Amino acid sequence: MNDIQEITEALIKFRNERDWEQFHNPKDLAVALSIEAGELLESFLWKQYQEADKEKVKEELADVFAYSFLLAERYGFDVKEIVLNKIKKNGEKYPVEKAKGSAKKYTEL
Amino acid sequence: MNDIQEITEALIKFRNERDWEQFHNPKDLAVALSIEAGELLESFLWKQYQEADKEKVKEELADVFAYSFLLAERYGFDVKEIVLNKIKKNGEKYPVEKAKGSAKKYTEL
Amino acid sequence: MNDIQEITEALIKFRNERDWEQFHNPKDLAVALSIEAGELLESFLWKQYQEADKEKVKEELADVFAYSFLLAERYGFDVKEIVLNKIKKNGEKYPVEKAKGSAKKYTEL
Amino acid sequence: MNDIQEITEALIKFRNERDWEQFHNPKDLAVALSIEAGELLESFLWKQYQEADKEKVKEELADVFAYSFLLAERYGFDVKEIVLNKIKKNGEKYPVEKAKGSAKKYTEL
Repeated sequence: MNDIQEITEALIKFRNERDWEQFHNPKDLAVALSIEAGELLESFLWKQYQEADKEKVKEELADVFAYSFLLAERYGFDVKEIVLNKIKKNGEKYPVEKAKGSAKKYTEL
Repeated sequence: MNDIQEITEALIKFRNERDWEQFHNPKDLAVALSIEAGELLESFLWKQYQEADKEKVKEELADVFAYSFLLAERYGFDVKEIVLNKIKKNGEKYPVEKAKGSAKKYTEL
Repeated sequence: MNDIQEITEALIKFRNERDWEQFHNPKDLAVALSIEAGELLESFLWKQYQEADKEKVKEELADVFAYSFLLAERYGFDVKEIVLNKIKKNGEKYPVEKAKGSAKKYTEL
Repeated sequence: MNDIQEITEALIKFRNERDWEQFHNPKDLAVALSIEAGELLESFLWKQYQEADKEKVKEELADVFAYSFLLAERYGFDVKEIVLNKIKKNGEKYPVEKAKGSAKKYTEL
């Protein structure tokens, strides 16, 4: 069993033991993910990134991953497949010769 | 090589080809993650979750994963380890007997 | 003195007494605003909107306003002017005859 | 009529002309606000704040204000009152003698 399956199964087991599937509709999962992304961001507020508390980053990033994997599972997405496909698409939006060394959005390249 | 390593290597390769490491400090990665979480959320705005466009969800969730994996890599976090540890911690905050069937925050249980 | 000026002056006084202007650059103010928007959203997580705690909504919305006014002040924006201008622009993107009763984004109308 | 009333009335007029009240429940308004806060944040991504496009900041901040005022109106909150009350509360969490010159959260002061 690969890592992503293993993580996903642990998350589903945790959820089912608590009978939380009823709350985990995709919209609320996306809301939860956005809230956790905000908490992660709080690690860096009013700071240079070097001053962020690595333990807090770890905890909050774990929450972001948890809701991301649950959302992927809910839709039956294969995480590896969707990320590799997105990289391919982004390669077309950001060709190396244009995008190299530039932080511009593809609409401005 | 497991899936997470494979995804991470593809992301790093994409980034390095474009010389983007200079922009990818942890604070901006967390900012990017939060922006993408907002775009994912947009799939569900003014809608019941059943009406969301599955393709848009897939694209935006892929972006969320991409920045999450990049941030994990930047800190040297093992994604499986941090998520499984977080599940364990959450098990203490949300014991089955108290949390079952309840959507309350642990501070209110 | 109008309401917005009065609120803004109270916020600036609070900030200056604590010598926080040094932290309040526009990027971190936008980060803070996004974090507070996430905390506001947490009031509605796993819930129908009717179940949200009105007091929590009030507190978090006040924080959202605080950072929004501080950011407007930092750029010298007149809040009334920028919102009324945006309404005008949105009127062009969403003409009544097309947008009436529809939740679609203007790109799909 | 003060500025906040004037802005709010313009927003409500715009909404009612398009028959959008049906979509504007508080949960979706909070979701919309969070999305707009993400778009505002995008102005600063991969950048020093000085490099942000002031026009984009203005547009996105106007959207943040629009949903904030609509949410306040939906709950019948007086914006000036809730912000001034929050400043007072924050004054207790962040007393000048402790908080001066510090970016720490009140839980760490």
